[in-house]
Amino acid sequence: MPRIDADRLWARLMALAEIGATPAGGVNRQALSAGEIEAWRLLIGWAEAAGMQASTDPAGNLFLVLPGRDRGLPPLMMGSHIDTQPTGGKFDGAFGVLAALEAAESLDATPERDVVVVAWMNEEGSRFAPGMMGSEAFAGVRALEEVLAARDAAGTTVAEALATLQAAFPHLPCRPLGFPIGFYLEPHIEQGPLLEQRGTPIGIVTGIQGKKTYEIAVEGAEGHAGTLDMADRRDALAAFARMANAMFREVGAADPAVKFTIGMARVEPNAPSVVPSRVTFRIDLRHPENAALDAFGTRLEALAEAHAPPCTVQVKVLVDAPSNEFDPDLRARIAAGAEALGHPAMPILSAAGHDARHMAPLCPSAMIFIPCRGGVSHAEHEWAEPAHVAAGAAVLAEVAASLVLEEETAA
Amino acid sequence: MPRIDADRLWARLMALAEIGATPAGGVNRQALSAGEIEAWRLLIGWAEAAGMQASTDPAGNLFLVLPGRDRGLPPLMMGSHIDTQPTGGKFDGAFGVLAALEAAESLDATPERDVVVVAWMNEEGSRFAPGMMGSEAFAGVRALEEVLAARDAAGTTVAEALATLQAAFPHLPCRPLGFPIGFYLEPHIEQGPLLEQRGTPIGIVTGIQGKKTYEIAVEGAEGHAGTLDMADRRDALAAFARMANAMFREVGAADPAVKFTIGMARVEPNAPSVVPSRVTFRIDLRHPENAALDAFGTRLEALAEAHAPPCTVQVKVLVDAPSNEFDPDLRARIAAGAEALGHPAMPILSAAGHDARHMAPLCPSAMIFIPCRGGVSHAEHEWAEPAHVAAGAAVLAEVAASLVLEEETAA
Repeated sequence: MPRIDADRLWARLMALAEIGATPAGGVNRQALSAGEIEAWRLLIGWAEAAGMQASTDPAGNLFLVLPGRDRGLPPLMMGSHIDTQPTGGKFDGAFGVLAALEAAESLDATPERDVVVVAWMNEEGSRFAPGMMGSEAFAGVRALEEVLAARDAAGTTVAEALATLQAAFPHLPCRPLGFPIGFYLEPHIEQGPLLEQRGTPIGIVTGIQGKKTYEIAVEGAEGHAGTLDMADRRDALAAFARMANAMFREVGAADPAVKFTIGMARVEPNAPSVVPSRVTFRIDLRHPENAALDAFGTRLEALAEAHAPPCTVQVKVLVDAPSNEFDPDLRARIAAGAEALGHPAMPILSAAGHDARHMAPLCPSAMIFIPCRGGVSHAEHEWAEPAHVAAGAAVLAEVAASLVLEEETAA
Repeated sequence: MPRIDADRLWARLMALAEIGATPAGGVNRQALSAGEIEAWRLLIGWAEAAGMQASTDPAGNLFLVLPGRDRGLPPLMMGSHIDTQPTGGKFDGAFGVLAALEAAESLDATPERDVVVVAWMNEEGSRFAPGMMGSEAFAGVRALEEVLAARDAAGTTVAEALATLQAAFPHLPCRPLGFPIGFYLEPHIEQGPLLEQRGTPIGIVTGIQGKKTYEIAVEGAEGHAGTLDMADRRDALAAFARMANAMFREVGAADPAVKFTIGMARVEPNAPSVVPSRVTFRIDLRHPENAALDAFGTRLEALAEAHAPPCTVQVKVLVDAPSNEFDPDLRARIAAGAEALGHPAMPILSAAGHDARHMAPLCPSAMIFIPCRGGVSHAEHEWAEPAHVAAGAAVLAEVAASLVLEEETAA
């Protein structure tokens, strides 16, 4: 009695991974790129062939709707995102969207309410910062105007990139931002090693670890590398090196549960014989306990100030998201679904951020994790086993059926 | 009895600075750019109007030749470069080329030998590394093939950029690389504060401080910023921060005469929630004493190795140029010219590198410095006073006349 078609799901994952495929086996399909437009076309084609209807909203989120009997009820929404990091893999995001599509297609009766498969805009935040813009705008956490004004490294705004996407789908209905949702479910690869280490295919996500991101700009003065005395320099890169080194030592190495990353840095003017006048960098700070997260954040800001002179520094908080907890009833349904299918499951904290963070305040929400090899993600060799992909989608399908099919709700 | 036209020289400097002008008053006219093509056109027009003939060579150097009586004698060559840093100024390079043109035009009789005004290709090394490629190729210090294969950040090779330049001047004769030169003179702004501090308009350059440049690549492994434990990371940016910090402390702050700069750094994949897998950076190291330069270079390589683990590191030496000394007879002629014109002059060591470094082994060579405001160069607010520009060009013209006009040689 398999509810889902595991082969179809795997074949779709591999087909989607062709779009933006990199020579090293990964995927580079950044938010609102030509690749994402092509990926939308593929998804919409599959959904329409299954009797679903595509629509979008002003934030560039994609909705694939399986109509229910009572269209007035707030829908069950399931999904994730299809944008990737510049050197991303085949599963991060894509698995969640395609598992959701598979779960929707697998329903063997008309659901009592609409089932919406969602692909959120710009979850990764690598082209446009910060990430999760689509779900943030949907949830009202970030103003649409702010999202639309964000620029990529080439100076293109989200608004401009979005216009290109919309022009590629001129007949797609546009729904209002933030329509009511009944339940939200997001399947995803774990992006950590725990499920693999314990040989457990299903993670019942308890919540998402808190995260703060910062943009720090160190401002000095440029000068000639061969003539300006060291004592007279205001070298922004020297200040950055002092600052970063102190941050790795005093925050990154201070607590085994902290995660401290400087993933991005830009040097200006970035010429070999010019003392740098400016270094701008991004910090990603995470900790499962909100008090520790706040304390490390305060420490980082103090270290930036302390090590800046003779340069000056500006610290901007881009994201300040405390830890959250997912809905107990949905977590129980995931546990029941896994048990019914014979898949071992365990509770797990999400170390990575997900769009589900922004849905959780709007409606009962939960996440299902599957293992990924070595715990690796955001990398071209990211990998999930076909059996785990199938298990995750099958559990999702069970939970979806329990929520929207009458006989199952009654069972 | 003014030999040069100071107003014409200043007007030409300002006209040249229009090409690639930046909003902040600087110039961005990088090697082999569209701006440099436009600048060539301007220079060639001025030179041809003065009866001079333009030519080039396979390395993209520009020659403006005033024919002498005996065309078989090795010419007097004077000049500098017209490429700039991305946020460069109006005088670095341009002053030397235009002062040379002015000096050539000011000769009041046919010179005994050809006078060649030169604009060397890619002195700055900011678009294509390393700098001084044109004079290096001319002097046989670097193979032409190596120069032509260098790539800019966009992946364009020197060969491709050069083809665009050559296509813009299809009728320009191409001379063989490294034709014989009789004397070489290069006027330049000081790029340091000494002449200004001592109120001296003319610097008689004794030699050029030694320089080493390195490209260092730190290789780690990428991973997810929210999930990968700190203990399991091979974070290339963390290793770079340790390394750079130690280098600033143990080399940059170790000796008042050392100049240590990390002007350029590139982070990969440079995404906010990805642990960086690779940081590539450039070091510019200078010291007036060759023994100290070598010792600090050795120390830098050791620090790179010591701070790399758990990452790996590769150190590549791009430039290894010891200090040199300019020709005593030409220095005496500069002193005599300055004295004849009533301009105070002083001997000075060049802290910056110049194309003259590569000409010095080929023929008697020397440099004339003029002050620049605050010692600042490689910056948009770089500035030289009109009186100092005129003084530098006038002294150059005296020296040129003493070398190529018979009555003056006899005097």
